[in-house]
Amino acid sequence: MKNFSFVNPVKIIFGKDTIQQIANEIPQGSKVLMTYGGGSIKKNGVYDQAVKALKNFEWYEFSGIEPNPHYETCMKAVALIKEKGINFILSVGGGSVLDATKFIAAAACFEDGDPWQILSKGAPIKKALLFGDIITLPATGSEMNSGAVITRDETKDKLSFASPLTYPKFSVLDPTATFTLPPRQTGNGIVDAFVHVMEQYLTYNEDDTLMQDHMAEAIVKTLVEEGPKALENPMDYNVRANLMWASTWALNGWISCGVPEDWATHMIGHEITALFGLDHAQTLAIVLPGVMTVLKDQKSKKIQRLGKEVFGIQGENAIPETIKAVESFFEKVSVKTHLSDYGLGEEVIEKVVDRLRNRGWKLGECHNITADTVKEILTLRK
Amino acid sequence: MKNFSFVNPVKIIFGKDTIQQIANEIPQGSKVLMTYGGGSIKKNGVYDQAVKALKNFEWYEFSGIEPNPHYETCMKAVALIKEKGINFILSVGGGSVLDATKFIAAAACFEDGDPWQILSKGAPIKKALLFGDIITLPATGSEMNSGAVITRDETKDKLSFASPLTYPKFSVLDPTATFTLPPRQTGNGIVDAFVHVMEQYLTYNEDDTLMQDHMAEAIVKTLVEEGPKALENPMDYNVRANLMWASTWALNGWISCGVPEDWATHMIGHEITALFGLDHAQTLAIVLPGVMTVLKDQKSKKIQRLGKEVFGIQGENAIPETIKAVESFFEKVSVKTHLSDYGLGEEVIEKVVDRLRNRGWKLGECHNITADTVKEILTLRK
Repeated sequence: MKNFSFVNPVKIIFGKDTIQQIANEIPQGSKVLMTYGGGSIKKNGVYDQAVKALKNFEWYEFSGIEPNPHYETCMKAVALIKEKGINFILSVGGGSVLDATKFIAAAACFEDGDPWQILSKGAPIKKALLFGDIITLPATGSEMNSGAVITRDETKDKLSFASPLTYPKFSVLDPTATFTLPPRQTGNGIVDAFVHVMEQYLTYNEDDTLMQDHMAEAIVKTLVEEGPKALENPMDYNVRANLMWASTWALNGWISCGVPEDWATHMIGHEITALFGLDHAQTLAIVLPGVMTVLKDQKSKKIQRLGKEVFGIQGENAIPETIKAVESFFEKVSVKTHLSDYGLGEEVIEKVVDRLRNRGWKLGECHNITADTVKEILTLRK
Repeated sequence: MKNFSFVNPVKIIFGKDTIQQIANEIPQGSKVLMTYGGGSIKKNGVYDQAVKALKNFEWYEFSGIEPNPHYETCMKAVALIKEKGINFILSVGGGSVLDATKFIAAAACFEDGDPWQILSKGAPIKKALLFGDIITLPATGSEMNSGAVITRDETKDKLSFASPLTYPKFSVLDPTATFTLPPRQTGNGIVDAFVHVMEQYLTYNEDDTLMQDHMAEAIVKTLVEEGPKALENPMDYNVRANLMWASTWALNGWISCGVPEDWATHMIGHEITALFGLDHAQTLAIVLPGVMTVLKDQKSKKIQRLGKEVFGIQGENAIPETIKAVESFFEKVSVKTHLSDYGLGEEVIEKVVDRLRNRGWKLGECHNITADTVKEILTLRK
């Protein structure tokens, strides 16, 4: 087990009818900016509950944050914050709204030139506005971590950052807010959480982190057992609650303690989304089985563990059968797993491989996934 | 799943050769009191490492904190703190030293009369000194929670408290510090962590908290798989690391999120320790199988889950076989499970039942364990 240090200061408020508690969590006298996306929160009642909770605050709103949020959009919110003297942000929505909010919180206090440098050059964040969130889509884990992914529309760069100053002060997780999610978003969220675990679990042949392995498997088992039920019975509270809690755990920093991390699937997927507009989770469902297949020797022990502990697969063909089981699980929660399912093919492989060759990245926990390896991976996923 | 809120601000520093990092975690200019127990830290090198890390601080030491730490001892440390103007405490040792340190930190700032009232009446803690720890015995989880158990020697009262102000600022977990633990303490630690999980898992027939159940089972599986290895190969780093991390998780507040909690085994066990001096874990190993047997109908679904998921037991006799498996596991890590193994018998039952009758407590997650039920439980454990 590797050495590690860990701290996570986020306060979680979990359960039904908990949204009104934000009134006690936002510092008194704050000028608040509520950030949100396309308006689904106005249909499911979450917007009205947030407005009610803000009644004793001076507050403003900024809507229109898109999936895979754009730098350009975030900078408009930064301008509003400066104009109004806002000092607290309340994110209401899914991981995209919250990721945008994290960047806005940092960019509003950035004094060393263009805030894009936070993403492009890892420019240090010295200060950030306080923010909290009501999360309405279990998927990204953003509600309990300090990271965010932002896309520059102009250049199609999709990049990430993290800082000790961009943890939410609080996160409200009300499973009833997920009852009305469209099936596509429910399925996407399950796949996203599943792949988050894989990035921190399905790595080279270490077998000295039994505690973290069992924990990772606990999250994955919950997703595998409950995921399909959420699509069948979208208003089953306990199913939604288990999925919401599992998604938070999948990326709150705990299961990465002391283990190697991969993230190749995410890095390849980000390029596909940036260039071709596929949903984030769709790209993950396409790429992960390819990564598992091409890296099957390096990852053999962990693929076998996954098969045995989560899918009950053992025996000679455990590795290909486990890869197949992962693919079938994605399909079962309505996320397709091949480029052709989305009307795409060779053109994706060429463009993505080109971009990765230009970046010179070597991906994966062993830094051995070159542009050529990515070509091999994506060719399997046509 | 019940509603819950959760926050845990403790910074964990985990791994070999990490003790020197405390120099960066203690606020500069602090006057430090190092608290410790009977001197085992002087034999295993931990004391020397702590002293080295404190070289730029003005520091004092207070030793002689006993297992099941005494209020009377703690108050001597409080006097030293006041005399020297100390403003930071560094606990070096196991859960007893750390529990004492939590009480000392609160008692040193208590201005509303006798600090015993924190334990006897739940008097509110308004202020506490900052403290951190180097934990040398994985068992109590005290390194990542805000609770402590203190005994008043004079009256044999063993009582607990917790406060948002008594979380450690940091906890250093160096598995190599556990290499030289005597087998009795290694076994005790494993049993303590195991029973912590049971108190938050083995409750009435809820089946709506799948995520927490899988998490609890992840911890227990780690203890069951790695525990006996630690006794066979005390210097196996990864075994010690997995056990240390599992023990922290067993009581850091996570697995209690959204679930009912029992704690009857602990409450009964505390009385046996206070009256007859048995090790804390010894009392748990005696009591838990009795609680499981007497409450087997109420707890049937969870006993069956435990049997299936952790011990691979299924079928008609799953419940008695699982109870037997738990007992065998305790024996396997060298902790005996009957009163007679410790030269005790009927006199324990009488005294403990009398004390509980006088207190009027109704224990367990359903508040249905009366003094008479405790009599039934302990009679099975002679």
